[in-house]
Amino acid sequence: MKIAVLPGDGIGTEIVAEAVKVLSVLDLSFELEEAKVGGAAYEAHGHPLPESTLKLAQQADAVLFGAVGDWKYDNLERALRPEQAILGLRKHLELFANFRPAICYEQLTHASSLKPELVAGLDILIIRELTGDIYFGQPRGRRSAPDGVFAGQPEAFDTMRYSRPEIERIAHVAFQAARKRGKKVTSVDKANVLETFQFWKDVVTEVHAEYPDVELEHMYVDNAAMQLVKAPKRFDVLFTGNMFGDILSDEAAMLTGSIGMLPSASLNARGQGLYEPSHGSAPDIAGKGVANPLATILSAAMMLRYSLNQSEAALRIETAVKSVLAQGLRTADIYSDGTTRVGTKEMGDAVVARL
Amino acid sequence: MKIAVLPGDGIGTEIVAEAVKVLSVLDLSFELEEAKVGGAAYEAHGHPLPESTLKLAQQADAVLFGAVGDWKYDNLERALRPEQAILGLRKHLELFANFRPAICYEQLTHASSLKPELVAGLDILIIRELTGDIYFGQPRGRRSAPDGVFAGQPEAFDTMRYSRPEIERIAHVAFQAARKRGKKVTSVDKANVLETFQFWKDVVTEVHAEYPDVELEHMYVDNAAMQLVKAPKRFDVLFTGNMFGDILSDEAAMLTGSIGMLPSASLNARGQGLYEPSHGSAPDIAGKGVANPLATILSAAMMLRYSLNQSEAALRIETAVKSVLAQGLRTADIYSDGTTRVGTKEMGDAVVARL
Ligand SMILES: CC(C)[C@H](C(=O)O)[C@@H](O)C(=O)O
Ligand SMILES: CC(C)[C@H](C(=O)O)[C@@H](O)C(=O)O
Repeated sequence: MKIAVLPGDGIGTEIVAEAVKVLSVLDLSFELEEAKVGGAAYEAHGHPLPESTLKLAQQADAVLFGAVGDWKYDNLERALRPEQAILGLRKHLELFANFRPAICYEQLTHASSLKPELVAGLDILIIRELTGDIYFGQPRGRRSAPDGVFAGQPEAFDTMRYSRPEIERIAHVAFQAARKRGKKVTSVDKANVLETFQFWKDVVTEVHAEYPDVELEHMYVDNAAMQLVKAPKRFDVLFTGNMFGDILSDEAAMLTGSIGMLPSASLNARGQGLYEPSHGSAPDIAGKGVANPLATILSAAMMLRYSLNQSEAALRIETAVKSVLAQGLRTADIYSDGTTRVGTKEMGDAVVARL
Repeated sequence: MKIAVLPGDGIGTEIVAEAVKVLSVLDLSFELEEAKVGGAAYEAHGHPLPESTLKLAQQADAVLFGAVGDWKYDNLERALRPEQAILGLRKHLELFANFRPAICYEQLTHASSLKPELVAGLDILIIRELTGDIYFGQPRGRRSAPDGVFAGQPEAFDTMRYSRPEIERIAHVAFQAARKRGKKVTSVDKANVLETFQFWKDVVTEVHAEYPDVELEHMYVDNAAMQLVKAPKRFDVLFTGNMFGDILSDEAAMLTGSIGMLPSASLNARGQGLYEPSHGSAPDIAGKGVANPLATILSAAMMLRYSLNQSEAALRIETAVKSVLAQGLRTADIYSDGTTRVGTKEMGDAVVARL
């Protein structure tokens, strides 16, 4: 089994180092191979996703990814900016199924912006379609407006689109995931305005016929943004397209108060996956040894479960993380009075010690 | 001066009746003319926005709008569903500038899902572009996918587009509004993924050159969804496109904990406007006399200020609403221990009494 390790930029290198440390004490045999991605790859090779990095990722069973991005690349042309690497990996590896759990850990309930009673015990699984929608839809670009009130004026445009098989395959993923959990899927759309999401709603409803044991509800995206704030625990599996999923998964992650704890997985039909923390590259704290490595360590656990068929090892890591929290160890982002503040390395070491 | 009164569906009729009551005691001379819209218009005339209603709205100086929608119309074809009325009014009246304040009233801080210290004193103005973007972009529809991995498969698609003059005019509105407030604009985009919003960002940056006294920051929409939860008070004017504005304005409204208090205005270049509460038609409580009329009453105040040039009268209404809250009167949605629960009519009467 081969794991491509792509630390990326900012805190990426620090947090991935801890996850690698954790993986290496598990007594499993896999090969790790590291490559540059994002800004780091641009500096070294002139492109955020060099051919060699892409090839490594394609040949691996799984990709362990840190984070990419830094303000200093803001003025590069879009095709060379760090985040193009992550979009490119998703596209080329066909990682259409993104899993983003929004979990509120018992000991961290107080860290949420929300009142504790609203988030205590929160456990939502957000499933976001990741290779379609307006993220990749062609045509797109700039032109002179071909029609409408502003015909002839300069305009920019993008195309939102979803085909039936794209919706079907992610709907199956959502219903199957719900089966293993609370058996409820909330499909989020904007069918009252968008053709694409009326179609989404229609196809999801059809696929649902194969899952009579799972409850399906449809919700407009604006309402979903509200319900997440009002009563997040009403959700079990929240399932949506690429664009809405981007917004809602970040909103939900922040609601937990501990985005530094949240892993994610992006899978293709062959079980290959890319695993990364839900948070970003945080250039402001990079290199200071204070970043929280737990989201990345938990992403490594997801990798073991989903792509490497090692669910026992995954569980061991997750249990170790919980026990480190119970021990009172906290990185700066989740620190509160009465707990022990530790750095990135110490947190990684503590997880290793528990294993 | 002529006001078109369009109560609509659900609680629309009840709450608009209270706003009309308030307007009628102000000793101002305007003509009110009522017409059906939404489901009510569909029942009566077979269309959610009949020609006669549209004409009335076009000829009026302002439209006082209740709310539209009911589950019972869910299976109508899209063109006949109630919300098409609101989309049609926006389009035909060219109401491109939508103002949605997200304010947390002192006495209602506890009603928020967020911890009180995060929302106490919250006062954000959300400015949403309302006639462009993927809401109206052509082409759209269903077809066989013309290209891509799923070429030949059935797909649905929509077009996101913004032309330079559309972005310019709403940017001017945002900067001018910020000048009268905290002098800070946060322009929300997804320039890292979408051509449309890279263009948005570029044009907004250009327009900003005319407003050196106003601070401009750019923020990605996913980050904005997070920052609203984490630190809503960091925003002054939050300014974005139609689709993102739909989602973020609802998220922000819910954060205040009292969406039943929040008015909105949608204006065109000629100062004509449509005024409506930020909340929906709430068919579950329709006809029970328990809905909160204050968002509609405050929308009437916005109408006096923005379209009818009666800012003194607007302020009188706003002061009356605050004093009714201070008096301890509350409809069910904002009720808490120690306050006095009242119905829709009593709340309207209380505002009238304060005038
Ligand atoms: C970096 C960006 C392109 C990306 C996205 O929008 O998908 C990120 O926000 C995410 O959610 O993984
Ligand atoms: C009813 C619907 C079409 C509308 C919108 O999406 O704009 C509503 O959600 C709103 O925000 O006014």
